[in-house]
Amino acid sequence: MAWNPDSNNEKAETKEMDIRNLSSSQFHVHSESNLHKVAVPPKQNLFQEFKSTMKETLFADDPLRAFKDQPSSRKFILGIQAIFPILEWGRSYTWRKFRGDIIAGLTIASLCIPQDIGYAKLANLDPQYGLYSSFVPPLIYAFMGSSRDIAIGPVAVVSLLLGTMLSDEMDPKENKAEYLRLAFTATFFAGVTQATLGVLRYYLLGFLIDFLSHAAIVGFMAGAAVTIALQQLKGLLGIKDFTKNPDIVSVMQSVWGNIDQWNWQTIVIGVCFLSFLLFAKYIGKKNRKFFWVPAIAPLISVILTTFFVFITRADKQGVAIVKHIKQGINPTSANQIYFSGEYLKKGIKIGVVAGMIALTEAAAIGRTFASMKEYQIDGNKEMMAMGAMNIVGSMTSCYVATGSFSRSAVNFMAGCETAVSNVVMSCVVFLTLEFITPLFKYTPNTILAAIIINAVIGLFDVPAAILIWKIDKFDFVACLGAFLGVVFQSVEIGLLIAVIISFAKILLQATRPRTALLGKIPSSTVYRNIQQYPEATRVPGVLIVSVDSAIYFSNAGYVRERILRWLMDEEEQVKAACQPAIQFLIIETSPVTDIDTSGIHAMEELHKSLQKKNVQLVLANPAPVVIEKLHSSKFTDIIGDHRIFLTVADAVSSCSPKWVEEEV
Amino acid sequence: MAWNPDSNNEKAETKEMDIRNLSSSQFHVHSESNLHKVAVPPKQNLFQEFKSTMKETLFADDPLRAFKDQPSSRKFILGIQAIFPILEWGRSYTWRKFRGDIIAGLTIASLCIPQDIGYAKLANLDPQYGLYSSFVPPLIYAFMGSSRDIAIGPVAVVSLLLGTMLSDEMDPKENKAEYLRLAFTATFFAGVTQATLGVLRYYLLGFLIDFLSHAAIVGFMAGAAVTIALQQLKGLLGIKDFTKNPDIVSVMQSVWGNIDQWNWQTIVIGVCFLSFLLFAKYIGKKNRKFFWVPAIAPLISVILTTFFVFITRADKQGVAIVKHIKQGINPTSANQIYFSGEYLKKGIKIGVVAGMIALTEAAAIGRTFASMKEYQIDGNKEMMAMGAMNIVGSMTSCYVATGSFSRSAVNFMAGCETAVSNVVMSCVVFLTLEFITPLFKYTPNTILAAIIINAVIGLFDVPAAILIWKIDKFDFVACLGAFLGVVFQSVEIGLLIAVIISFAKILLQATRPRTALLGKIPSSTVYRNIQQYPEATRVPGVLIVSVDSAIYFSNAGYVRERILRWLMDEEEQVKAACQPAIQFLIIETSPVTDIDTSGIHAMEELHKSLQKKNVQLVLANPAPVVIEKLHSSKFTDIIGDHRIFLTVADAVSSCSPKWVEEEV
Repeated sequence: MAWNPDSNNEKAETKEMDIRNLSSSQFHVHSESNLHKVAVPPKQNLFQEFKSTMKETLFADDPLRAFKDQPSSRKFILGIQAIFPILEWGRSYTWRKFRGDIIAGLTIASLCIPQDIGYAKLANLDPQYGLYSSFVPPLIYAFMGSSRDIAIGPVAVVSLLLGTMLSDEMDPKENKAEYLRLAFTATFFAGVTQATLGVLRYYLLGFLIDFLSHAAIVGFMAGAAVTIALQQLKGLLGIKDFTKNPDIVSVMQSVWGNIDQWNWQTIVIGVCFLSFLLFAKYIGKKNRKFFWVPAIAPLISVILTTFFVFITRADKQGVAIVKHIKQGINPTSANQIYFSGEYLKKGIKIGVVAGMIALTEAAAIGRTFASMKEYQIDGNKEMMAMGAMNIVGSMTSCYVATGSFSRSAVNFMAGCETAVSNVVMSCVVFLTLEFITPLFKYTPNTILAAIIINAVIGLFDVPAAILIWKIDKFDFVACLGAFLGVVFQSVEIGLLIAVIISFAKILLQATRPRTALLGKIPSSTVYRNIQQYPEATRVPGVLIVSVDSAIYFSNAGYVRERILRWLMDEEEQVKAACQPAIQFLIIETSPVTDIDTSGIHAMEELHKSLQKKNVQLVLANPAPVVIEKLHSSKFTDIIGDHRIFLTVADAVSSCSPKWVEEEV
Repeated sequence: MAWNPDSNNEKAETKEMDIRNLSSSQFHVHSESNLHKVAVPPKQNLFQEFKSTMKETLFADDPLRAFKDQPSSRKFILGIQAIFPILEWGRSYTWRKFRGDIIAGLTIASLCIPQDIGYAKLANLDPQYGLYSSFVPPLIYAFMGSSRDIAIGPVAVVSLLLGTMLSDEMDPKENKAEYLRLAFTATFFAGVTQATLGVLRYYLLGFLIDFLSHAAIVGFMAGAAVTIALQQLKGLLGIKDFTKNPDIVSVMQSVWGNIDQWNWQTIVIGVCFLSFLLFAKYIGKKNRKFFWVPAIAPLISVILTTFFVFITRADKQGVAIVKHIKQGINPTSANQIYFSGEYLKKGIKIGVVAGMIALTEAAAIGRTFASMKEYQIDGNKEMMAMGAMNIVGSMTSCYVATGSFSRSAVNFMAGCETAVSNVVMSCVVFLTLEFITPLFKYTPNTILAAIIINAVIGLFDVPAAILIWKIDKFDFVACLGAFLGVVFQSVEIGLLIAVIISFAKILLQATRPRTALLGKIPSSTVYRNIQQYPEATRVPGVLIVSVDSAIYFSNAGYVRERILRWLMDEEEQVKAACQPAIQFLIIETSPVTDIDTSGIHAMEELHKSLQKKNVQLVLANPAPVVIEKLHSSKFTDIIGDHRIFLTVADAVSSCSPKWVEEEV
């Protein structure tokens, strides 16, 4: 494995170097032609370049791969299957799978019914709208979605977000009809947003979906959990005059300011059953065999407390009850959506935000369970399915539905096999709407509050936050910022903080890239960061600096000055130690992934400054785009083609061959 | 220079690899302990880490370097000198230098007087305010600034920007007094912004100054030049009812709609002298000896036309004249600045924008001439000086002043030595204000228009735009976007477009990083992009991919899927060619400068997907931050410490030593 310095490069290094005149020390430039030359990539014409960039940006996953070289009948079938994955997996559906799905479906149905009623309240809607949203959207999803484990329906965070944003526009009690219409409008546009993202390709608007970092999501979810749990204190304590502001300060003032409204009967029921639910959850976690215990505990609680209130007529003692849920399945609501007027714009705005948050949640769930069971889900199909189900939902009196964390986990553990479990759940909800809703009349609100608190506790992911703290302090700040924003202000502010901090991190990295000094790893030809590898040795007379980022306008000035500062520091040390002066500055450009016109200007200025100091600028391993731009800007002519090397080792050997030879 | 594979690493590679069980081909894992291990950098404690990060972000240029190890009396002197650089260079000032400065000062004074009167009109202010702004600010700058060549005063782009933003708030004719007060307020806060940026360190708010890419500035300036030139058509053609909208469509409608208002006498004077000015400019460019011709041509034109109008009383024929310039030096205006009320906020907003644009222009000028004469200018001192001069200016009836491109170039060519040339110019302006302003009464507006058109033509930098097109197509789009935004909408919109496109580029790069396949460069141990180096050979059974960016939430999903797609493509090809199947995927992580929690999740998912395909994930050369995070997230435990190598060559040799041995 000898490093053989012969090469096919004959052009470079053949003329005498003028640096010799500048240099008066022992170092001189290697003038033999034995080094690899940095290749300039073959020039593409503009159209090809544009085409390949667009393809990579928009169709990075090559969506038509399966359609290639197929007869047109086959293409048609593949196309239909692409829209309705059920046609693909449905053909291999078996009774054994159905058994799994029916058990899972019944389990998540028993969990979703009480949750739906509670979540509808978070969105300031009547309880039946929560049930409606667990009837139609899961059916649509089952035909179009590609995840096998996700459980579709209303979820806490999206309900809260929708409720907050809608009440900012109008009062949900005073303008009940308009509020409902605006909710359908927002749902419609949430669906349109999702479907559009699906059609326009995941990758075109990739950064709109990936606009939240993992850390920001963890913080946002935890904040939403706290906010939702706090709002449930209204139901749990039986307070009547509760604040409408979601922040922790207002809620705490409401709770302690209205201590006279606390209703002990309500509190006793709520706290007892909350303990029961938490205990059930604990059992389910302890032993996965008992996954069904936490799944059916909410329904059992509802049945028990409803029966209890009905028997004791505790509602006359001040225990608030659900009172009325409209019987019957979803009425049509297509004519209620605002397609013009002032509310159209508001509906679009709310819909876009809610749709994207819903998508973020669904994507995280889908990906998690897919990787557990090791199958692929298709981001585009998922978005199309979500979009379709919300568009249809908005026309059938549903509000924004998405994948629910808690129900999907139960679905998974109950052994679901395909999206048929969603169909089963949907059927149960249908039966509930048709026949059972009157029975909910005496269900106390406090039990719904307990169920919601129990459900959202899972969103408060402490281990994830600890891991984030361990891995990256800046990420933790993003996480904390999102959390505090949601808790102390509102969901929107928290979301805004999360987005801003997420992007600030990218921009900060583009403004202050790391630079490092490199040294030679003993007995190798490899040069690495001397902080990371303290055993690496410096090359006398040569300073090797790596720049850890694309050089753009945002950091060009900084990079230039930072490199000059490395040089000044080094020169001081060298002087103090009476070592030979620095004569070559090698920039390791492997991590420099791109350069723009400002960056090239900065390099030119750096070159000039170095010339004044009699230091020669040398580049090692520029990437294809970088070398291409250096060429077209003639910068390679300024520093000389023979100053650009394939590796740091080549560059060093050409700067001070004597030293290298001595070493070896 | 033999690559000697002995190493100080004893831990890695000593146990048998479980991959052997998976693998059935000729490749097996090298189990000898002869490779360098990737070092995890020494762990800093949190406080140290925070301190060093803050230091690097805020004080990257180590501003107190000169103060280190000095006695306190010396420190005091250095401190005073830091604020007033004149104390430093003033001591070595000579008569020879003064001769240069006085010639340069007189030359730029003759250029600035007619320009100032015209620029004040762009800002919708009376002509004397332009002259005021060429009297006080240059004096202040001479004491505090560090550039030797910059010529201070009002400039076209800032005047236009200020004029546009101020008239958006109120009508400059109806509310003349308030308009003037708001202008002073904006100037005050422009100064405060600049001084604050100087105090808070260039680097803290570095990205606020570097918020425009070079390309965006080129486009913006060209757009501003066109807008300013178009607005001069009012004066040049003698049109009375001219639009106030700056966009090209409105201006053209005004020009062709009011063809009956065209005044032939005005046009004749204007066009003749515009030709004269352009010819003078041409002569100055042709032969640098005649630099003074374009410099004094404007003043000569003003004198000639003023005299001509006075003699012929052409103003009675409809030739618009200046009429009145208030005699005497700057009155105080400190009491006119709004420090409360509704205009305070507007003043701050306008001031911040104008201050930053002024700073961008001054920084570009200062840097250009400093690099020509090879001296350093200090960004912080510059900002402090600019801030001080505008704050003092706002209290002495000046509006925002900065460095002017055209006058600085003349200053440079006239042989200025120090900022004393600004003092000379300031004295001439003082004399003008005291004694000569009444003589400007008959100066026709058309000559001022011609002078401004002549001045702003230089801002239209076609060669720079062509170079940008050659180097980077995306940068060219930013340039064009800014240009069209200014020309078809307004200066603010153009600015906004420039900022958005500038940042979009950074974000796009963070969303779609390049990935590439690597191959071995013949007779070396170096692996490089096979597109850039077509001679590079692939290693059978091993796929080597490089990822060209930090892996963040914004691209983690893309990177994962892109790598899997490289693998799928490769597997198809390998199958078709009946070559051995891919068993190792090596990721070259040299350009991966950072990773966040989302990135680590993506790597975990990638690892899982690869395991299913019986492909082993191997990492080469992770950076210090990356390896640290991989360690703290336990990802190194998941893939195994022995799967992380110092170089791609090490990684390849451990994956398939047989092949490498055969080759060598």
